Amino acid sequence: MENSHPMFTSHADTLERALTAIAERAYWSNYPESPSPRIYGEHAAAEGEAAYRAYLGTDFPLKDQPAITGWVATEKSPFGTAIDVRYPQMDLDLAFAALAEGMPTWRAAGPQTRAGVCLEILARLHKAAFELANAVHVTTGQAFVMAFQAGAPHAFDRALEAIAYAYREMTRTPAVADWEKPAGRGQTLKMTKTFHVVPRGVALVVGCNTFPTWNSYPGLFASLVTGNPVIVKPHPGAVLPLAITVKIARETLADAGFDPNLVLLAAEAPGEGLAKTLALRPEVRIIDFTGSTEFGDWLEANARQAVVYTEKAGVNTVVVDSTDDFAGMCRNIGFSLVLYSGQMCTTPQNILVPAAGIATNEGHKSIDDVAEGIAGAVRALTADPAKGVELTGAIVNDGVLERLQKAASVGDAVLESSDVSHPAYATATVRTPLIRKLGAGDEQTYGTEWFGPISFVVATDSTQSSLRIFSDTVGRKGALTASVYSTSPDVLDAMEEAALLAGVHLSVNLTGGVFVNQSAAFSDFHASGANPAANAALTDGAYVASRFRVVQSRRHV
Amino acid sequence: MENSHPMFTSHADTLERALTAIAERAYWSNYPESPSPRIYGEHAAAEGEAAYRAYLGTDFPLKDQPAITGWVATEKSPFGTAIDVRYPQMDLDLAFAALAEGMPTWRAAGPQTRAGVCLEILARLHKAAFELANAVHVTTGQAFVMAFQAGAPHAFDRALEAIAYAYREMTRTPAVADWEKPAGRGQTLKMTKTFHVVPRGVALVVGCNTFPTWNSYPGLFASLVTGNPVIVKPHPGAVLPLAITVKIARETLADAGFDPNLVLLAAEAPGEGLAKTLALRPEVRIIDFTGSTEFGDWLEANARQAVVYTEKAGVNTVVVDSTDDFAGMCRNIGFSLVLYSGQMCTTPQNILVPAAGIATNEGHKSIDDVAEGIAGAVRALTADPAKGVELTGAIVNDGVLERLQKAASVGDAVLESSDVSHPAYATATVRTPLIRKLGAGDEQTYGTEWFGPISFVVATDSTQSSLRIFSDTVGRKGALTASVYSTSPDVLDAMEEAALLAGVHLSVNLTGGVFVNQSAAFSDFHASGANPAANAALTDGAYVASRFRVVQSRRHV
Repeated sequence: MENSHPMFTSHADTLERALTAIAERAYWSNYPESPSPRIYGEHAAAEGEAAYRAYLGTDFPLKDQPAITGWVATEKSPFGTAIDVRYPQMDLDLAFAALAEGMPTWRAAGPQTRAGVCLEILARLHKAAFELANAVHVTTGQAFVMAFQAGAPHAFDRALEAIAYAYREMTRTPAVADWEKPAGRGQTLKMTKTFHVVPRGVALVVGCNTFPTWNSYPGLFASLVTGNPVIVKPHPGAVLPLAITVKIARETLADAGFDPNLVLLAAEAPGEGLAKTLALRPEVRIIDFTGSTEFGDWLEANARQAVVYTEKAGVNTVVVDSTDDFAGMCRNIGFSLVLYSGQMCTTPQNILVPAAGIATNEGHKSIDDVAEGIAGAVRALTADPAKGVELTGAIVNDGVLERLQKAASVGDAVLESSDVSHPAYATATVRTPLIRKLGAGDEQTYGTEWFGPISFVVATDSTQSSLRIFSDTVGRKGALTASVYSTSPDVLDAMEEAALLAGVHLSVNLTGGVFVNQSAAFSDFHASGANPAANAALTDGAYVASRFRVVQSRRHV
Repeated sequence: MENSHPMFTSHADTLERALTAIAERAYWSNYPESPSPRIYGEHAAAEGEAAYRAYLGTDFPLKDQPAITGWVATEKSPFGTAIDVRYPQMDLDLAFAALAEGMPTWRAAGPQTRAGVCLEILARLHKAAFELANAVHVTTGQAFVMAFQAGAPHAFDRALEAIAYAYREMTRTPAVADWEKPAGRGQTLKMTKTFHVVPRGVALVVGCNTFPTWNSYPGLFASLVTGNPVIVKPHPGAVLPLAITVKIARETLADAGFDPNLVLLAAEAPGEGLAKTLALRPEVRIIDFTGSTEFGDWLEANARQAVVYTEKAGVNTVVVDSTDDFAGMCRNIGFSLVLYSGQMCTTPQNILVPAAGIATNEGHKSIDDVAEGIAGAVRALTADPAKGVELTGAIVNDGVLERLQKAASVGDAVLESSDVSHPAYATATVRTPLIRKLGAGDEQTYGTEWFGPISFVVATDSTQSSLRIFSDTVGRKGALTASVYSTSPDVLDAMEEAALLAGVHLSVNLTGGVFVNQSAAFSDFHASGANPAANAALTDGAYVASRFRVVQSRRHV
């Protein structure tokens, strides 16, 4: 049915490998995560930074978007440096007309060609990895290496994963089938049936402030590859990474012979509430959102014309029962808290420890020993500001600061948050993790999400009581991650059962180089869709299957 | 991970063949559709009828259901014969507690075992094919052969298809994966990851009056095989076929070592509104519904805690442009109208014909020639009451009769509906199809569904105008089926494009032994989920993927 598009031909092997990866879910990555010049080339970092700097203070090169009514600059870097990039705003009726224009041709191109074009977009984004990394760094406050990894190769891997799932799903029904039914008396009824993959309509992607590419790419690519035009509404605080993405997607679509207006950037002025307006457009049939529970719930309740995929807030929990590597445990948990100053949706918040303490390879440890062990690990990682900021990055926005201030007065002190002077950016807002100690009765405090560098050591009656608290809080508020430390197979089994019932992914006895807040594309699922923190997982069959429909025609041969 | 359950072992080949069938979507059926004694055995028909008769006038043998509060008899046969079977009603809080009880064990049994048990339920239902056929026949008014085919083997095929899709979906992620990531300096991070298929929660199946098994089985089996307990709420007019189904499912579950209360029948007294009550229970996380647009829309809007799959009303349309087999076309359309007196959700309603007539192999035919050709075919099929009732069956309920009476006065007469005396059942309510002629301006009449033996020949300005009307009505009201007659490749292309945009499956130039109202399991999709008539298709990846979630755990090796 399809002649292979050159962009499919050149990426067919990558797609094939990704299809194997999602069937195996073992380790695989297509985009090297190390920003080393040995991998990316001697000049890649400098060129990427130069490309990024060229955008600063200008009208972003999306002047070819349709129906531009004005330009808006909204970004404020957590590092305090100037950005001042202006992005186009559009007349929405005309923008939606433009989105619809290219849809029939994009649909008719078929799964293979669309996959080829999407993979070429990814290949070009990969060439722009350092440009993107700088944009993610400056807008989110992530330290540079993290901005590179999470903002570029890891985001590309998640995008490729979504494309692979969508391709597998679109092609599980053949394009054509011959149907021959014995009709008695030696007769046969013969028909040929054609199965068309048809898109749902326009897809809206609502980006977040902290991971503008990583959290947006799966939805963007899953929708685009299944035939839907995509309108990308970035968080006003992190527009540049998605503007670069949209620019490269549009260029690639045009080069491939398709309408570049299949992908549009929808920037907004502060307070405009553009996401709400877009979400209620009848043309919008798919929405991907990462952000607050409040707005996610609003979308699910109100954007009834669309399939809505949300990732919202949750209460990530660590159950500490016992360990045979006390130092490793404390180091591992401490590192998780320090990474991007707890501003990951996967950072642990509640560390549940029996008030009577725990058994360890270093003998009995009181709950204060455990708290102090974790606090000590955090201190060790942040003691040297130059090294510390390469882990913590900066604080993404004032909401986090306010929360941090409020948290400083709940419960008892374990570790104060400190205001660090960033060696490279005098104007950066840097804060180290705060740890407070609470009782099991303080569920009004630990029972909701405190997004930011805030965590609680919660004294429980026993591990059994910890499991109950875990089940309760995650059942009510959801979680993106859970972890457990125990040397007891029975406790591990009970925690696994509790995690299954709560519907949250579990990490067991992490003491080395894997951290609970990291999920590896092609192997770990991010979110489960089985608890209130998210109604979908990145990335699985359910995430892609409803982005298109199969419509058939049949006729006698 | 799983030791094969004997029920899986004995049905593994069937499952394997079904998995091939859904990948090919060519002709395949696992359950012979002919009720011939050569296939089902000399005594099968008599034994099945006897088993059915034994239920009449008794308390249905579901006395082992939990929390029974009373018994209710609600069925009234379209053939006027007595049924008077009493079904248990339950205390709902206790019933939901019972449903939840067996869920952890059923979940832990894993995809293979659950598939084996579901296939065994189907095998036992197949042994009860004649018993079920009698139950479908007497409650729906379908002629016996149709009740047998649609009510038993075709329903089993659709169930098997749903099981196959769900099994494929559950097993696309491996149960266990080894993850080894190069960590630099010759080090490797090694983890083992376990992926658990976890159910969403209780699934509610709301049955319909006309196809109690065919329309309920896909949802019932898709939910059960993915680990969810199922509560089956039959239409009060067609309880028996689903009561038999639930009884056999419960027996099989118990024999397999699982809690029989994983499947419950929820019968209701008239006017009780039990479906609404059940649909809003927080435990209910999946709903499958076939029936009115009004209630389907209500479910989608209100049962927000659940994933809701609906099949509602639509306006099925035939576009007549030209034909090289005028007699075959008229016969084929006529047969579609006669079958079960138009009481299929797939029966054509609007037959759009250019007012100036069409070109055919018999020369030019006026629109009245076309209308009369179809009317003649209907007359020929229904002239002999004894033969006619074997196609029309009886009228399912008073709603259809009222609609038929109302339709008799719209537009101009083409064919009157006649009241036929059923040779076997003096008390049966039988009506032959009514055909009225309308103008293109009568969209207030033809623009909504008239469920029953009611169709309209609509005079349009041209085929182009027919396509516009088709796109408009299906865009607004949806459709389960569409068909076109034309000798022009351009018209066929335009109709196919219009069908893709409207999101409705298309049949082209049916003049022989395939009818637009029939969809073959494993090859044809039933509904598309792409227009207002249904938000899902039977059966595809999207239909099964959201019935469960994958929750993982990971630990270092």
